[in-house]
This record gives sequence, structure tokens and C-alpha cells, in this order.
Amino acid sequence: MDFKVTVLGTCSATFAWGRHQSATLVQFDNLHFLIDCGEGTQLQFIDHKVKTAKLEAIFISHLHGDHYLGLVGLLGTMSMGGRKKPLTIYSPVGLKEIIEVQFKHSGTILNYELNILEHQANSPEVIAQFQYFKVSTLPLQHRVPCTGYLFEETIAKRKFRSDRNLEVVPVPAIKAMKEGEDYDGPEGKYFAADWIEETRPPRKFAYCSDTIYLPHLAAQIQGVDLLYHEATFDQEHITRAKETFHSTAIEAATVAKDAGAGRLILSHFSSRFKELDVLVNEAKSVFLNSEAAVEGAEYPILVNRTVTNTK
Amino acid sequence: MDFKVTVLGTCSATFAWGRHQSATLVQFDNLHFLIDCGEGTQLQFIDHKVKTAKLEAIFISHLHGDHYLGLVGLLGTMSMGGRKKPLTIYSPVGLKEIIEVQFKHSGTILNYELNILEHQANSPEVIAQFQYFKVSTLPLQHRVPCTGYLFEETIAKRKFRSDRNLEVVPVPAIKAMKEGEDYDGPEGKYFAADWIEETRPPRKFAYCSDTIYLPHLAAQIQGVDLLYHEATFDQEHITRAKETFHSTAIEAATVAKDAGAGRLILSHFSSRFKELDVLVNEAKSVFLNSEAAVEGAEYPILVNRTVTNTK
Repeated sequence: MDFKVTVLGTCSATFAWGRHQSATLVQFDNLHFLIDCGEGTQLQFIDHKVKTAKLEAIFISHLHGDHYLGLVGLLGTMSMGGRKKPLTIYSPVGLKEIIEVQFKHSGTILNYELNILEHQANSPEVIAQFQYFKVSTLPLQHRVPCTGYLFEETIAKRKFRSDRNLEVVPVPAIKAMKEGEDYDGPEGKYFAADWIEETRPPRKFAYCSDTIYLPHLAAQIQGVDLLYHEATFDQEHITRAKETFHSTAIEAATVAKDAGAGRLILSHFSSRFKELDVLVNEAKSVFLNSEAAVEGAEYPILVNRTVTNTK
Repeated sequence: MDFKVTVLGTCSATFAWGRHQSATLVQFDNLHFLIDCGEGTQLQFIDHKVKTAKLEAIFISHLHGDHYLGLVGLLGTMSMGGRKKPLTIYSPVGLKEIIEVQFKHSGTILNYELNILEHQANSPEVIAQFQYFKVSTLPLQHRVPCTGYLFEETIAKRKFRSDRNLEVVPVPAIKAMKEGEDYDGPEGKYFAADWIEETRPPRKFAYCSDTIYLPHLAAQIQGVDLLYHEATFDQEHITRAKETFHSTAIEAATVAKDAGAGRLILSHFSSRFKELDVLVNEAKSVFLNSEAAVEGAEYPILVNRTVTNTK
């Protein structure tokens, strides 16, 4: 199943150097999710040909404008575009009031059901579960309540063991066995555990923005395949980073290294950096597989870790 | 004094065909004003090199998202950009609550004084006065309370009559006489009314969006030099226009004709029109000096009427 991330916005606070406000699309097979929705996310959708029809839920990290100001416009556009499918938004407390006040004054009635689920992310918690994966909160520390999100496959890719005779299992039972069900065959029971092997561990993607450097975050996202971490500042501005509850590129890379991450994409760059080399180079000095997020680029979530359970 | 308008957004409701949400810049000499501020107005400012330092006030026509969703982001950006100069926003009732709720949750404290003056525009009323011009409300009729704005010079261009001897008036007194003050000279009183003539009538610009066709509007903007009027639909969709409280191009042109306007710029186009020829041609059939607004283009406010009071 396709599991990939498209970063649509990489600036912090103000638009600069052609960079846009935070918005990241997560696609897991046919389920699409948006994390954060800064002003102009709709325009980025148009520029990068993102369709909203498959959008299942939106996750807002925090209520600073550059992370949510595009939301009310997007909700209205989807309604005018004929959306009927319900939509769920996960957010720290406050978003419901922000949306309701605006809908009240504009007389907006959406053509679809909107559920806003607010959370107080004091500890990591699974907040959304789907057939093949789940989403957990990652409590971050910023100037306002802020939450990262961990997207995690719950069932890894499974296949029949090569030393088993696939032909004795009828086709409809194959899918069920791959999902862990045993098969009652004419010659007795075939135990899934005995016939199926996992070819790779479940894939993980973590989104961490905005936050002061949190050493304990690494444990919560251990083994993450792709880590999106804010890197607003370089090391020269570490004092400013602490004051504003942001991270430096080196701090982001330290989280990646300590988490045993596969790949780190840096984002949420201060407007003081026109060129991002300094941030990337600093990050690479700690964690080699670091790079600056490119708006519109797709990042597949690939297993980077040693496959330990293939027989 | 330079008096001109730059249209930055020409779409209605949803972004389409490269058109952006409503935002119109009015420049009167060194005073700059913004009318409406749809999502992404900040981005249009960047694209069209609009500086916010001279922005004196913002006028919001109504609280549909495509007319104000860029406001909270813009206010924050100006604060982060170092603005200290106070800013006034004029708006129908509701904007204050919308802004305050968002500032509360984002912990925003602006570095400048923000005054939000809400009005209930039931009849035309002067709401802002400056040295050389004034702004009045134009009550419109839409699905939510909606107000157009009339920008009007209060002092037309004045010069000394050609049959008077300019040399007998000292330089400092010349400016004062042009503004209507009499001059006490060594040889007696020189009456401004006798020495000064107006070379043209005061210039006027009217902004009318969004509204159902209002025949009585023409009287309120009589003699307007430049009329910006919404033209969401063509005549084929007049029923839809009435249902949604919008105007057709022909209705906009009828207002222009009845007002004796100099020039009509149509805007706020429905996404169903990729090409705007049908709208422009329909408008021209009623009022020849009609055109579709072009984003980024500057429209000078020029006196189009016969100069009646030059001696």
C-alpha cells in the first residue's frame, strides 16, 4: 500500500522566498490526510494538483495562524465543490470556537458533516484508527498548546511463507490469512501464524512542528521511517530558538539520530534564511540522511530499518 | 495628488483560473487603503510588490470568507514586520469577535494599535475623513450585511486664476489660499474665492461588491469617475444572481450608466467563466467604457466629466 507524504508549505510565520505556510499531505493508499493548513493551502492544492475528494481528516498541530488560517476557506471550498463525505478535524482546544464564530457571521452551512475533535495532548495517545494504520498524538512544547502526529501502519506487509503450498488455500481465504485469520480447510485448520510471514516492519511517519527541542521525543517515535521536524533556526540562533520555543536544525537532527530514524526532512524555515544550506549542513553533521523539505515533492515512507522478522 | 486603485483579486468564492479572492488597494497620494482582504492577499502583496507600511486603514465589505480570510494573517505579518503605526479596520458587525477569538487562541499581541470600527450601514454615511478626501458607506444588499465604499476627494485641484498677479502673494500664502484661506497682504485682503479657481471637480471612486442589483445605488454614486462593481454572473444566470444576491454584468453596467460613471471595472467573477468576454461584451452593450478588472493593474482615478467650473 502506497504511503507517502507531500510537503506543501515550508515557511515559518511569514511567507518568504517563495515558501508557503505549513501544510502537509499524508497519503495512505486511498486515505488522504492533511496536517496543518496555513493560509493559502487551497492555492497550494491547485498548484500541486491535490484533489480534496479523498481527504478523510485534517490534523492541526496548533493554533498559530500559519498552521490553520487556510482551514475555513478550504472547508467552504470543499462544500461548494460538492463534498458530501464527512470530515473530521483533530486539533488542540480552541479550533471549534474559531470555526463556529466565523460560520456564524458568514452564515455558512456546510453540505457535509464536520466533526471537530479537540484534544489536550499531555501524553501520546492514539486518536484515530483505520484499517491498516493509526494516528497518535505527540505532545510538543510551544508557546501555545501544540501536538505532533505519528502515523503508523498497524499491519505490515505480509506474504505466504515460501515453503508453504499456496495452492491448497482458495483465493478468498488468502487475503483473510494475510490479515491474521486462520483458515478452516477441508483437510483441517491452517494457522495464519504458521503460514504467513511479515516481510517488513510497519512503516511510521512522524510530524513534529512547532516545538522547542524535546529530547524525550526520540523515544516516542523510535524507529520512525520518515521524520518531519521543524528547523526554524540554525545553531547561531539557538537562544532565539529557545525563547520562541522552536528548534534548530541540529536539534531536529539529534531527535532523528536518537530515534533511529530513516530519513529526516527539515521544514518551517525562518524567513532569515533565503538559502537553506546552513541548516541542512548543520543537520547532516549529526544525522546524515537530512534534507530540506521541498514544496510539492513526494516523500515515500520506506522501511529503512533492518528487516528482522523475515524468515 | 495621485489617486489610483489596484485590483488584487477578481474571483468570487473559490479560487479559479488563476484569479484570487477580493482585495483592492486604493492609493491617495501617500495614504494607502485596502478594501477587502480575501485569503492569500498577503501573497498578492508579494507578487505585486505592495508595501504595507503606508496602509492607513482597511475596509471590509462583508464577512464572507473570500472577503476577509486574509486579514488575520496580514495583521500578524505587519506586526512581525515591525509596524508601529496604528491601523483602523472598518467592517460590518462581527469582525471584532472573529479577530478577538483568533488572537485569544494564538496568543497574538500586535505591536501596533488596532482599531476595529464596526458599522451598520443602513444609509450612506461618512465614516472616515482625511485632509483631502473622505470615505462613505454604500449600503449594499447581500446574504449577510454588506457595505460598499465611496472614496471621494474633498478638495479638487485648485490654481490661481490666470488673470491675477501671482507675484504679489508670498510663497507661504499660496498653499493656504489654494486651500481656501484668505490672505492679509500689505495692500489689503486678498479673498481666496476671488483669486483661486477649481480646475476640475473632486474625483470619486466607488467599490460595490457583493450585491444584488440596486437601482438606487446610481444616485448615491452620481458622477463617479471609476466604478468597481461586482459582476459575478452573465445575463443567462440572472435567476442565479438574484437567488445568491449577486449582480450580472449588465446590471453592473446599468448602475454605471445611471450614475454617469466615467469608467466601469467589472470583478468578482464566478468560477464558471474561464473567459470573461461574455461579461465584458454584455456590459459594453449598456455602458461602453466597461472592462474586466485585471489583477495587479493600476486604475488611475481620472476626471471623466465635463469641467464645469473653470473660468
